[in-house]
Parts: sequence; structure tokens; C-alpha cells
Amino acid sequence: MAEQPVLIAGEWRSANKSTVFTATNPRTCESLPDEYPVSTYADCDAALDAACEAAEVIRSYPPERVATFLERFANRIEARADEVVAMAHEETALGISPRLANIELPRTTNQLRQAATAAGEGSWAEATIDTRTNIRSYLAPIGPVCVFGPNNFPMAFGSVSGGDFAAAIAVGNPVIGKANSSHPGTTRLLAEEARLAIEETGMPSALVQIIYRTSHEDGEKLVADSRLGATGYTGSRSAGLKLKAAADAAGNPIYLELSSVNPVVILPGALKERADDIAQQFVGSCLMGAGQFCTNPGLVVLIAGAESDEFIAKVVDGFNAASVGTLLGKGVRDSLQAGIDVLSAAGADVLTSGGAEDGDGFCHANTLLKVSGDAFLADPLALQAEAFGNCSMIVVADDVQQVGRILDATEGNLTGCFYTNTAGADDDAYDELAPRLRRRVGRLLNDKMPTGVAVSPAMNHGGPFPATGHPGFTAVGIPASLKRFAMLQCFDDVRPHRLPRLLWDQSPNPGMWRRIDGQWRRGDVTKGSDS
Amino acid sequence: MAEQPVLIAGEWRSANKSTVFTATNPRTCESLPDEYPVSTYADCDAALDAACEAAEVIRSYPPERVATFLERFANRIEARADEVVAMAHEETALGISPRLANIELPRTTNQLRQAATAAGEGSWAEATIDTRTNIRSYLAPIGPVCVFGPNNFPMAFGSVSGGDFAAAIAVGNPVIGKANSSHPGTTRLLAEEARLAIEETGMPSALVQIIYRTSHEDGEKLVADSRLGATGYTGSRSAGLKLKAAADAAGNPIYLELSSVNPVVILPGALKERADDIAQQFVGSCLMGAGQFCTNPGLVVLIAGAESDEFIAKVVDGFNAASVGTLLGKGVRDSLQAGIDVLSAAGADVLTSGGAEDGDGFCHANTLLKVSGDAFLADPLALQAEAFGNCSMIVVADDVQQVGRILDATEGNLTGCFYTNTAGADDDAYDELAPRLRRRVGRLLNDKMPTGVAVSPAMNHGGPFPATGHPGFTAVGIPASLKRFAMLQCFDDVRPHRLPRLLWDQSPNPGMWRRIDGQWRRGDVTKGSDS
Repeated sequence: MAEQPVLIAGEWRSANKSTVFTATNPRTCESLPDEYPVSTYADCDAALDAACEAAEVIRSYPPERVATFLERFANRIEARADEVVAMAHEETALGISPRLANIELPRTTNQLRQAATAAGEGSWAEATIDTRTNIRSYLAPIGPVCVFGPNNFPMAFGSVSGGDFAAAIAVGNPVIGKANSSHPGTTRLLAEEARLAIEETGMPSALVQIIYRTSHEDGEKLVADSRLGATGYTGSRSAGLKLKAAADAAGNPIYLELSSVNPVVILPGALKERADDIAQQFVGSCLMGAGQFCTNPGLVVLIAGAESDEFIAKVVDGFNAASVGTLLGKGVRDSLQAGIDVLSAAGADVLTSGGAEDGDGFCHANTLLKVSGDAFLADPLALQAEAFGNCSMIVVADDVQQVGRILDATEGNLTGCFYTNTAGADDDAYDELAPRLRRRVGRLLNDKMPTGVAVSPAMNHGGPFPATGHPGFTAVGIPASLKRFAMLQCFDDVRPHRLPRLLWDQSPNPGMWRRIDGQWRRGDVTKGSDS
Repeated sequence: MAEQPVLIAGEWRSANKSTVFTATNPRTCESLPDEYPVSTYADCDAALDAACEAAEVIRSYPPERVATFLERFANRIEARADEVVAMAHEETALGISPRLANIELPRTTNQLRQAATAAGEGSWAEATIDTRTNIRSYLAPIGPVCVFGPNNFPMAFGSVSGGDFAAAIAVGNPVIGKANSSHPGTTRLLAEEARLAIEETGMPSALVQIIYRTSHEDGEKLVADSRLGATGYTGSRSAGLKLKAAADAAGNPIYLELSSVNPVVILPGALKERADDIAQQFVGSCLMGAGQFCTNPGLVVLIAGAESDEFIAKVVDGFNAASVGTLLGKGVRDSLQAGIDVLSAAGADVLTSGGAEDGDGFCHANTLLKVSGDAFLADPLALQAEAFGNCSMIVVADDVQQVGRILDATEGNLTGCFYTNTAGADDDAYDELAPRLRRRVGRLLNDKMPTGVAVSPAMNHGGPFPATGHPGFTAVGIPASLKRFAMLQCFDDVRPHRLPRLLWDQSPNPGMWRRIDGQWRRGDVTKGSDS
């Protein structure tokens, strides 16, 4: 067994470690051969120092250089796609095709290229110039960013390749990746390509660094370290809240994407109209990838009646007929079971539970639960426990008013959906209910399931606590996701030659939008440009 | 003594109180006649419930109605200006003219009117439309906002009249004002005018509510309450950090403006060129209003040499010659003395200390301290203790390198300044030092003192922790300050008639800027508008 080195200050070097760990092939339940170190704080220290130096160097670079790096990195990932995908498949059991090779990897390189474009173009920085007072401001790099990637997207949300990474780098920040322990090998291959892209494009060697794991205490120390600019974290609520407490106490921004049950309200008129179609959408959305999505529809609200009973029967059939997928690991399987146990203990009935024996490796029965509106309202927090995986719970409410009370009792979520009759039969109910769900979710959908998260400038992959730590930011969508890793810097009567290029009278890039005297403009500052 | 009522749900009513307090005239050191209640949580509860209802009502209003309210309120403040200014003078000892009547009150109404314009115009909400995916998003009201106003700007930062208030209301949020205990009467008069403006413009009666004081525990409970959208707090670091911890743990956004010593680096070439002028600017900026500004220049860094000695001598003369102002109260005087004691104990020498006996009421000698660079670096945290008031400390460094180390050791601040030679003699030193100060401050100035905070769209009255709680936001400057009180709401394939007006294809306002398919545009959405 080879012990893999960490990447610090541009060198693949032996870790300062307390112990080692291995990844597991979820399909065989067997350990993979490579050993990865659990770093002590000495590695974090070294990475932070190197990242601070790199941050200072990048500050003097034109943004095009960062863009060139991101593009080169995307190219390199594509050139090594087969190997990266094979490793990701081995470590996560996610399907090679289409999932990893045709969806996630292209999404990853697409994000890197969109981030490159945003970095080179500069509009994201919201350069603001007030010619009357000669005060100028823009969004500047916040400093080294630590990215904790999740288990479920080894590339597209990966700590050295995903959306947080792309956003942090595009702003001009070095990234210290904290690999997810379930797929260290995938992260390693991606970090190798990042390092080579750094070399080829002449970026500071500590632009991208990787540490595989630390103790919980050291993780909390890292996000609170005064050398760090900010943290991006996607993962479990319990670990995330500990990191948040540590970062908050130190005043370090931390952007979290935590649990979300993503309420879906299906109103009677929609079921009367197209129950088959909706049942099929729901089963597909819920069980795709063994349901391991942050936007998995985990809480479906119906109103009692014959059409809801029929809908539930169809979904039960769908869950029973669907094959059982392999989960990302033992931890995911155990957490899923624990979540289901919480829901059951709080009064939910399990409607489907067979089939796990037909799956490979770490797997769990496709599980549909049901609970009454009354029971939900009697213990709403327990009945919102996230059961991450191929599982969902249907709440059957008495009437629209009770649906309203159920929505009022939901925590903050990433998404919320309504299915309604296309001819308007549910419109009164929608008007009553939508505002109540709206304030509890980041993204509101009509007539579609939430599992697709388009990389769109208008996307919000965020939402009120505890879905995230701040409802003003999105983790997906460029350029908006970049803002998280920036600080607002104002220049008050600073001499022209000392200004950053984005704030010069002469625009560094004719395509860049700047807010000049209150109006969005492209091109140079001209006196009297106020319209 | 009349006990004053609180304003909850549109009614001036008796508080649910634990006890009462009075304000003090700082000039006479005598209690003022009115008694104000210390509310129990029952008042907070009632205010939160009423605010939530008001928030839902406002959501359906066009933004012009909020603008109309803000304008009416500004007009009403002007109509009652003499009385408000007289009360503010009595409670704070700040000068009637020009300070209160000719600077702060016009600033207050100007901010309200700028906020009205921003609300009515809508560009601040950054409506973003992706026609390819039909995903749309904008910044929407975050919910009821609690504003804790500071002692030093009874109107312009007041809890029911200041910048946080104007920003929160412009977004469409009700405000629960927590009055500053040093000027409850001023807050009461302003709240009376707000209530009448609400009535006259047909806004929900709980749009503006006022509570005068709570226990510390209830304050922490209030900022953490799940009914609250966000908090704006300007005040002492110790109280602010307690509120931050409570709000953070609950996942409620809180925007803080805490202490700041605002480093000013004066380089030798500037002193050789114009020491008299700079000394005069510094003495004026530091002692104006008895130095009670968040951007007071509290830490001046010089390089040892004859010109610095001469500069210090001039400043000593200026401090000794200047009259001693009255402070806002006994608490401010005691804190100022405590801050000076901390600085002295850590090794700073007091260069000026006389004159307090000539001042009125609560006052303290104009105090200049001096410490060596070595001593500063031996205990940098203690030597950055804020001594809020007519006080500043000069650090005399050995050389440019030591100035760099001093800047590296500074905490986050609102502002940082450099004075340099106009012919370029200090440029090498500036290039070495400016990046190091830049990352620790929200606003960097050249050749001017930081105490002026223009209400400019490019202003950043913010900065890294502990100057504020998040370096991405500004408390002054419209429209940027509005974003703090908004949540990002995304609409994914939501049917057109269900969209908020700002996201319709047809622009509700021809002047409003929206980001349509990646480009800032005014006017309607037209397919193929991507340039």
C-alpha cells in the first residue's frame, strides 16, 4: 500500500500525520489499496502560509491569468477524463456513463470555463465608481479559501475542481482543498492536474493545495485561522454546524450547504390532470443516483382524497419496481437508516422496504414513508429529519389550511416546488400557499422536480438556514457564486495610478460592466456620463 | 415623570416592563424627566408577530409605496426638525449647529430619500433573468429587521431613522427599532413621525415599531428569534459580539459595525512637504465632535526622524489648544478612560492630559498617546484597544519594514489611510505597505482623514472582522447597503403571472437595470437580447 503525499506549496510531500485512512469501494465493501494521511495542524499551517504568499502574488496579476489557469485545468481534466472517472466510479459507485463521464465531468469543466470567462471579463466584481466624490469600490479577493467538498459529487463539487473551487479561484484566491474522505483518489488525480496547470500557466505554486483529512478539532481550527479568508463547505449538517460555530466566533466568513428536504406540494388539480406523469417524475427524481442529491425531493405534501391515494399507490409501485442503487458508502447507508428510524419513531409509516438484497454493496431499500398532516404538525422537526439517499416521505394533509401550517413549520430549504393544474383549478390554493413556502426556500419551482441544478446566472443553490448559513448567497451559478469569496474594497481619493485596474477611468476590458455614477455602463469613465 | 409608551403594531401602548430608565443630559450630568421602559420579552414577541404580518402585507405592494413612505417620513422629520434637534442636543450634547441641524439631520433625510429612490427604481435588487432556462432571481425582502442604533448619531444611524433603517425599509422589511439608551427621546420623536407617515401613506401599521431597552438576555433572544429576518447593530464590540454569537447560532444574519481604530500612516516625504497641514487635518479629524466617530483616526503610524518629532510636537500643541468637548455620557467617558488605561498599561506614554476641567459635564482631556514600534509589536492587541472619544495614539516605527509589521498586526478596521509625498518620494514605501493595509480595511484613503463618510454608491463603511461581522457588506452607501437585508430568491420555471413584478418580461420601470442573459439591460426582456 502506497501512502499518498499531500500537495503543499506546489510540492507533493509526505504529510505530517497522526494516522492514515483508506477509501472503500462501495460496490464490493472492500478497502481500496492507497493509504491517505490524516494531517496534523502542521500541514494546515504550512498550507496557510503558502496560500497567503500566493494570494499576495496573484493580487498583482491581471485577471486573465487566472482565467488562463482555469481553462488549462479544464482541458487537463478532459485529457485525463477516463482515469478520473474510473477512479471516481471505484470510490463512489456512481455510474460511469452517463453520470460521471457524460454529466458530472462536463459539468465540472463547464463550471471551470464559465468561471474563467467571469474572471477574465470582470463584471462580477461590480466595480462602482462615483466621479462626484472620486470614491471607487469593487469586490476584491478575500484571501485563501478552504473548500470542504461533499461525498456525492466527486468532481462537480469537489474540493479542488467543483463550484466552490472555481468561484474562489476566479476571484483570485488560492484554495486549500480538504478532500472528502470517501473519494481521496479522485481528488488526488484532480489535484495533480491542477498542479500541472499551475506550472504550465505560471501561477503561484500554492494556488491549489490539498489535505486529505484532519481531526475535527484541527478542521475547526483551520476555518477559524486568521490567515484564512473564507470557507466553502458542503456536507452534513452536524459537521457543518461545528465548523460554522468555529468560523463565526473568529469572524471568518463560512458558506455552508447543509441538509435540505426540499418540500414538494402537489395539489389535487394537478393530480386529477396528470398523476401518472407526476408520479413518474417524482420516482425518477427521488431514486436517480440512489437519491443522493442535496435537492432530492424528501418531503411531498398532498391533500387527502382519492387522487392522492391513487398517486401514492403509483409511487409505491414505482419505488418497488425500481432497482436499488449502491450508496456512496457505509456511512451514507447507516445515516439513511438512522434518518428513516427518526421518521418512523416520530410516526411515519414505511410503505416500501424491500429490494435491498438485490443491490450491490452498501445499499438500502428504496423507502417511501407516509405520515398524516396532524402527525407532522405534532413533531415537525423530527419529521423533517434528512434521510439522505433513496428515500422520501409523503405528508397527507387534511386540507389547504393544514398544508399552510405544514409549510409554516418547515425549516429553511434549498428548494420548494408546487405542482398545480394547468387550467387554474389550484390557483387559489397556490396563492395562499406559495408565499409561505417562498420565504423558506432559495429556489421555488413550478411543475418540475428540484434535482436539476442548472449552472445558470439566475440559479440560486442556497436558501435560509439551516439549508445554508446565509440566505443571500448561491453556491451554483456564475458569476453570483463568486461574490462569496470576495471582500468589498473601497478607494477614497486614492491616486489614479495606485488603483486596481478594474477601477481605472480607462476600462481594462470593453465588455466589462461597471456601475458608474449609478448606471451600469461598459467602457471608460467619462465625466458627465450620468444619464 | 411621564413613563413613555412603546410603539407596537401601530399603537403607542404601555410596555410590558421589568423596570424603567432615564436619559441624562451629558452637559449637566442630570437625569432628564421622561422615564422609558425596559421591556420584557412579551413586547418583543408582540412586535415580532406584528412585524411578520406587516412583512406579508408589504410583499404584495409595489415598491413605489415603500418609496412614498420614506419620502413622507423625510418630509415629516424636516417639519419637526427644531424639536428633534433640540431633544438630540439635550440627550447627547452634540452641537445644535452645524452638527445636528445642518449636518446630521440633512444627512438623515437625504439617506431616506436616496433609499426611497432606490426602492422605487429597483435596480438594487439585481433582477437576473436567464431566458435560455427560464430561471429568474432577485434580491427579495429578508423579513423583519431589528435595528440597534448607536449612541453617536442619534438621527443618521438611529434605529428608526438611520442608514440601517432606511436600507431595511427600502427592501420592503418592517423594522423593530431598539433605541439607544442614551437618546430615547430623540428616537421617540422620530418614531412618532414614522408612525404618522405610515398612516398617511397607508402602510401596515407595524412597519416601524420601537422598544427602548431590553435585558441583555432578551436582546440575544430577539436577534436569534426565528421570526426575525436580520439584525443591524452599531455599537460597542463587547455587546455586539454577544449578539453576534446568539444570531449566528440561530443562523440569523446580523450586520455589525463594531470598533475600529482606523490606522493612518504618514510617511516622511509627506511630512517634509506639508506637516502643518497634515497636523491640522489630524487634530481636527480627531477632536471634532469630541472624537466620537467610528472612523476616528485612533492609530497614527510614523517613521522615527526629525520630521516626525516636529509633527508630534505640532499635534501636541493642537490637542492642548483645542477646547474639550462634552462626551455623549458617563459611559463613554468611563470607557474612554478605560481604553486609555489599557494603552498606558501596555506601554504607551500620555503626551497630553490637561483641560478636562474646562469642559462641560461628562468630558475628558484631549489625549494623545505615543508608543514605539517595538513596544507596539510586543503587545499589538492591547495597543489597538479602542479609546472611543477625543483620543489618539501615535506609533513611531523604526523604519518602513517595521511599519509593515505593525500593519500586519492590525485587526480588521473600517478605514486605513496613507499620507505620501505628492512628488513621489514615498512611492516605494507606499507600494510596499499599501497592500498590507488594504486587506485589513474596508476603505483605503489617500491624503485625507477618514472621518467623512460620504453617502456615495461607491462607499464602503464596512471592513474585515472585528470592524464588522462580514467584509462583503457596507452599512453606508445606497443601493449597496440594501443588500444586507435581502435574501436571494430564485424562480425556476414559475408561471409568468406568478412572478414578482421585477422579474416579468415586461419591465415594471423603464429605468430599472436587470441582468438579462448575462448583460445589464434596461427595458423589457426580448428573446435574443444577448449581445
